[in-house]
Amino acid sequence: MTYLLNSPDDFAEEAVRGLVASHPDLLVEVPGGVARSTQTPAGQPALVIGGGSGHYPAFAGWVGPGMGHGAPCGKIFSSPSASEVYSVVRNAENGGGVILGFGNYAGDVLHFGLAAEKLRHEGIDVRIVTVSDDIASNTSENHRDRRGVAGDLPVFKIAGAAIEAGADLDEAERLAWKANDATRSFGLAFEGCTLPGSDDPLFHVEKGSMGVGLGIHGEPGVRDADIGSAADIADLLVDELLAEEPPRGEDGYDGRVAVILNGLGTVKYEELFVVYGRIAERLEQRGLTVVRPEVGEFVTSLDMAGLSLTLVFLDDELEKLWLAPAETPAYRRGSMPVVDRAPRTGTWDPGKTEIPDASEDSRTCAQKIVAVLERFRQVCADNEGELGRLDAVAGDGDHGQGMVFGSRGAAGAARTAVDQGAGARTTLLMAGEAWADAAGGTSGALWGAALTSAGGEFSDTEGAEERSVVDAVTAGIDAVLRLGGAEPGDKTMVDAAVPFRDALTDAFDTDAGPAITAAARVAHDAAAKTADITARLGRARVLGEKSVGTPDPGALSFALLMTALGEHLTR
Amino acid sequence: MTYLLNSPDDFAEEAVRGLVASHPDLLVEVPGGVARSTQTPAGQPALVIGGGSGHYPAFAGWVGPGMGHGAPCGKIFSSPSASEVYSVVRNAENGGGVILGFGNYAGDVLHFGLAAEKLRHEGIDVRIVTVSDDIASNTSENHRDRRGVAGDLPVFKIAGAAIEAGADLDEAERLAWKANDATRSFGLAFEGCTLPGSDDPLFHVEKGSMGVGLGIHGEPGVRDADIGSAADIADLLVDELLAEEPPRGEDGYDGRVAVILNGLGTVKYEELFVVYGRIAERLEQRGLTVVRPEVGEFVTSLDMAGLSLTLVFLDDELEKLWLAPAETPAYRRGSMPVVDRAPRTGTWDPGKTEIPDASEDSRTCAQKIVAVLERFRQVCADNEGELGRLDAVAGDGDHGQGMVFGSRGAAGAARTAVDQGAGARTTLLMAGEAWADAAGGTSGALWGAALTSAGGEFSDTEGAEERSVVDAVTAGIDAVLRLGGAEPGDKTMVDAAVPFRDALTDAFDTDAGPAITAAARVAHDAAAKTADITARLGRARVLGEKSVGTPDPGALSFALLMTALGEHLTR
Repeated sequence: MTYLLNSPDDFAEEAVRGLVASHPDLLVEVPGGVARSTQTPAGQPALVIGGGSGHYPAFAGWVGPGMGHGAPCGKIFSSPSASEVYSVVRNAENGGGVILGFGNYAGDVLHFGLAAEKLRHEGIDVRIVTVSDDIASNTSENHRDRRGVAGDLPVFKIAGAAIEAGADLDEAERLAWKANDATRSFGLAFEGCTLPGSDDPLFHVEKGSMGVGLGIHGEPGVRDADIGSAADIADLLVDELLAEEPPRGEDGYDGRVAVILNGLGTVKYEELFVVYGRIAERLEQRGLTVVRPEVGEFVTSLDMAGLSLTLVFLDDELEKLWLAPAETPAYRRGSMPVVDRAPRTGTWDPGKTEIPDASEDSRTCAQKIVAVLERFRQVCADNEGELGRLDAVAGDGDHGQGMVFGSRGAAGAARTAVDQGAGARTTLLMAGEAWADAAGGTSGALWGAALTSAGGEFSDTEGAEERSVVDAVTAGIDAVLRLGGAEPGDKTMVDAAVPFRDALTDAFDTDAGPAITAAARVAHDAAAKTADITARLGRARVLGEKSVGTPDPGALSFALLMTALGEHLTR
Repeated sequence: MTYLLNSPDDFAEEAVRGLVASHPDLLVEVPGGVARSTQTPAGQPALVIGGGSGHYPAFAGWVGPGMGHGAPCGKIFSSPSASEVYSVVRNAENGGGVILGFGNYAGDVLHFGLAAEKLRHEGIDVRIVTVSDDIASNTSENHRDRRGVAGDLPVFKIAGAAIEAGADLDEAERLAWKANDATRSFGLAFEGCTLPGSDDPLFHVEKGSMGVGLGIHGEPGVRDADIGSAADIADLLVDELLAEEPPRGEDGYDGRVAVILNGLGTVKYEELFVVYGRIAERLEQRGLTVVRPEVGEFVTSLDMAGLSLTLVFLDDELEKLWLAPAETPAYRRGSMPVVDRAPRTGTWDPGKTEIPDASEDSRTCAQKIVAVLERFRQVCADNEGELGRLDAVAGDGDHGQGMVFGSRGAAGAARTAVDQGAGARTTLLMAGEAWADAAGGTSGALWGAALTSAGGEFSDTEGAEERSVVDAVTAGIDAVLRLGGAEPGDKTMVDAAVPFRDALTDAFDTDAGPAITAAARVAHDAAAKTADITARLGRARVLGEKSVGTPDPGALSFALLMTALGEHLTR
C-alpha cells in the first residue's frame, strides 16, 4: 500500500526530485533521471545504470564516486524510455564512452538498446551489460539470459570501482561481465507489492505459504511452498545458490564470497539478521569465507514482503573492487580517496523541437489524429484495471498503467503539436516519442515506435487519403514486428496484430473505418485465443504455465484500440 | 507481520547475533547486547545507547567509531534489563565514565537507572541522557519529559562525535543534552506493527485515516485525521515542528537545521522522497538552511506504516558534530580519520553465581516456590493475548508478552537454583533477577524487584512459616511502590496492589492461602475499576483519554497472579 503520494502519475518523478533534494552534494537532476553533481573527468568511462523506479536504493541511490555516473529513472517498474536513457548519457559521458548497465528485462533491453543506437550514431562508444543473476529465471547454462535482481548491486559496485581505479571502457566492461558471471541470486516473497494509487497488491501469496523464485516487479514466484522457520528459509536460499558454486581452485576462485541478503520492502531488518545468522553459519560449514556481507535493503520492490540472497564468487580482482570505497546516497563504504571533483557546470537538455510548416490539409488531418489519440486515451483509462490484472498473472502487472501513461502522453503531445501548427506527420512523430517517454516498458517502446512509423506514412504538406490510414496502421504493426522480436505464438501483442494486418489487407476497399472494424474483430478473437498459449518471452518466460487460461494483455489492448479506431473512423 | 523467525522468544537475540555476524569489523557480541570490536581508549568516555529491539538501525546499528561504544539490546519494544545494561557498560567503559543514552520511557528509565546505581557503587562515573524529542507526547515547557523517537539519531550522533573529537564526560554530557534540547520530532502512522509470532497488529488505523503523533512502540496516535496528499502531510509535519522553532539570532541559532525524515518500516523510500521534496521546499520558503538531511529508515517500529520528521535547530557547535564522520553498521558518513584502533582482547562476562548452602527445610520451601512460579508461568501464558490487547489500547501492547517472558524466566531460574541445592531466599533472588532480565520493560523491572524483595523475607537456613509468606508478598508490593513511583489513581498495577496489601493484612490469621485468596478478590475488583481512570504515567501519559473504559493490564495481571497464588497455597 502506498500511503504517501500526490498523484500516482507523478509519483516516480517526484520521488526522484526528493532524492536529489536530499543529496545535493552527490546528485543533480537532469532530464530523464539523475547524474553526479560533479563532472565526469575527460576520458573516464561513464557508468549509467537504470531501470524502472520502485527499487530504491537501485538505481539512482547508487550514483556517486565509486559507483554510477548517472541513472535514468523510469516509471514504477517500467524501463526508462530511450530518450531518458539518451539524455542521462549525454549528461554523464565525457569522452570515455559509456557502459549502460541494467537488469535483463525486455523493456529495458529495448529502450536502452534504442538509446545505444542513437548514441553510437553520434560517435559515442556504448557498451551494454545486462545483469542476469536470478537463478530462478533460467538454467545455469543460460546464465546471461536470466533476469537481474539484487545482483545489480555487486555488478555496478564492481564496475564503478574499476572505473574509479582508472579502468578504460574495455576493461570496465570486461569486469562488469565478469562480476555478472560470478553472481547468483535467489528470492522468496510472502506478499505482493502494491502500485502507487492502487488498492490491491499485484499478487497475493496465500497465508502461510511463500512464492519461491519471485521477481522484483511483483512477478509471482515460480512455485509455492509452505513458509518454514527462518533457519529453513536460510537453508533453502543457501542450498539453491551453492548448487551453482564454481569449482574451487579454478580461475582464481578459492571459496571467497560476497554475500548480500536483500529485503524487498516489508520484511524488516531484525528478520533479515535472524536469517543472516543462519546463513553465515551454513556458509562457514561449507568452508566458504564471507567477504564484507551486506544485510539490508538494496534492490527493493515497493512494499513487497520478501527477501533474496545473492552470492558473488570472488577472485582477487573482483574482491578488491567489491571492497573498494564508494560514496553514493544509499551505498557508502570505506573512505573515498580525496580527489578534486570539479562541480558540474551545467546540464544537457534536449531543448525544444522545431515544428515544420504544414499545409491546411495536413493540419486538418492532424486534428483527426488528435481525436483518435484522445479516444485511445479514454479506452486505456477505461480498461486500466482489467489490463493490469491480466498482466499480473504472469507478468509485472504494469500493462494497464503503461497504456494509460503512454496514450495520455501521446494525446497531449499531439494536441500541443497541432496547437503549434503541426501537420499529420509531425504530430504522429511527436506523439510516438511521447508515448514511449510517458509509458516506458516494452509496450511503451513498441506503441511509440508504431506511432512513429505510422507517422512516416503521412505528410506535413499534403492531406491523407483513406489508403494512407491503412498504410499507416500497417507500417505501425511492421515496426512492432521488427523491433519487438516476437513471433505469432509467443503470446504477445503480435498474436493479435498479425491476423489484424492480414484481415485489414483483405477487407480494405475504399473506406478505412469499416475495414479496420472488421479486422479488429479478428484481432479480438485472436487476443482471446492467446489464453490457450504458454507465454515464452520476456518476464513471462519462466511463468509461462501460469499464463495459460489468461489472454495476453498486450494482445487485448491492441484489439481494444483497433476497435476504437475503426469505430471512430466509421462515425 | 513477521515472516522470518525461528521462535518469537529468541527473535531479538537471534537478530543481534546476525547483526554481529554481518559486521565483524565493527561489532562484537557481549552478554546483554553489542560493543565495538575495538577497545575504548583508556580514559575516553563511553557512549552506551539502547532501548528495546525492533527499532533497527536504532540502537545496535549505531555502534562504531563516531557514535556508540555499546548497546544493550532488550526484547522487542522492551527495555533491556538492568543487568544487560550493566554488562554492556562493563564491556564498553574504560576509565572515562559512561553516558547512558536512551529514549525517555518508564521501563528504560527504571532499568538504566538501576544499572547506573550499581555502576556508581563500583566507582564508575555514569551520566544519564534521556532523549525526549516527540512533541506529541508533552508540552514544549516540559520538553525533557517527552518521549524519545527519531531524535535518538542526532542526539547520539552528536554525543558520539564529541567523544571522538576528544570531549571528556562533562563536555559530552553537556552536548548530548544540548542536542536533545534542540531536537523536535513529530510522527504519523497509517497502520500498526505486529510483534513477532503474533497474527494481529498492535493497533489498526482505519483505512484512509492516520494516527497523528504516533509512538514508536505501536502506541496509537493522539488523534486521528484523514490521510491527505503527500504535500498535505509534509505541510502538517513542518508546521507542527516549526511552531517550536527557537528565535533566530539568539544562542547561535540562525536558521540552520538538520532534517531527518524517518520511515517507520513499511512506508517505502520512494514515498519518503516524495514527501521530502515538499518538506525541502517548505523549509526553504521559511528561510531555513537544511544541513545534511537524512531520508530513510533510522528508528523503525518493525513493520509499522508511518513516518516522522525531526528537526535539529543547529548552532556552530552542533552543526560541526552533526557533520562529523561516523562509521557504524547502519550510519556511515564522511571519512573517518585513520586512527589506530586496537582490537578488543576479550569480553567481560558476569560469570556463574555461587549458590549458598541451604537447610533441608529451606530447600523444601524453595521447591514450593518453584511450584508457585510454575503456576504463574501458566497463568501468564493463558492470559498473554488478553493482556496484550488491553495494553495496546493506550500503551505499547507488550504487557502480555513481557509477563510471559518474565514468569518463564523466573520459573526456569528457580528450578535451576533448586536443582543446584538453593534455599528459598536464593531461589527467589535468582528468580527475581531472571524475571527482570527475561521480561525487560517496566513491569519486568517491577516484578523482578518484587520477587527479589520477597526473597529477602526468607532464609536459606530455616524453613518458612505462613507468616513469612504474607510478609514476603507485602515486601514485594512495597518494592513496587518504592521503585515504580506510581500512586493509587495513576492507573497502574499499584491500584490493585495497595488494596490487596491492605485486605491481606486484615484477612490474615493463621493460613496464608485463604487470606491471599480473599485479598485477591479485592485486587480483582480494584483492577476492574481502573477502567474508570484516566492513565497518567508512562507511555499512557498522552493517551490517557483513550484508556478510559479499559482496565489497566498491569493491575489485572497482578490480580490474576495473586488469585493463582492463593489457590495454590490453599490446595
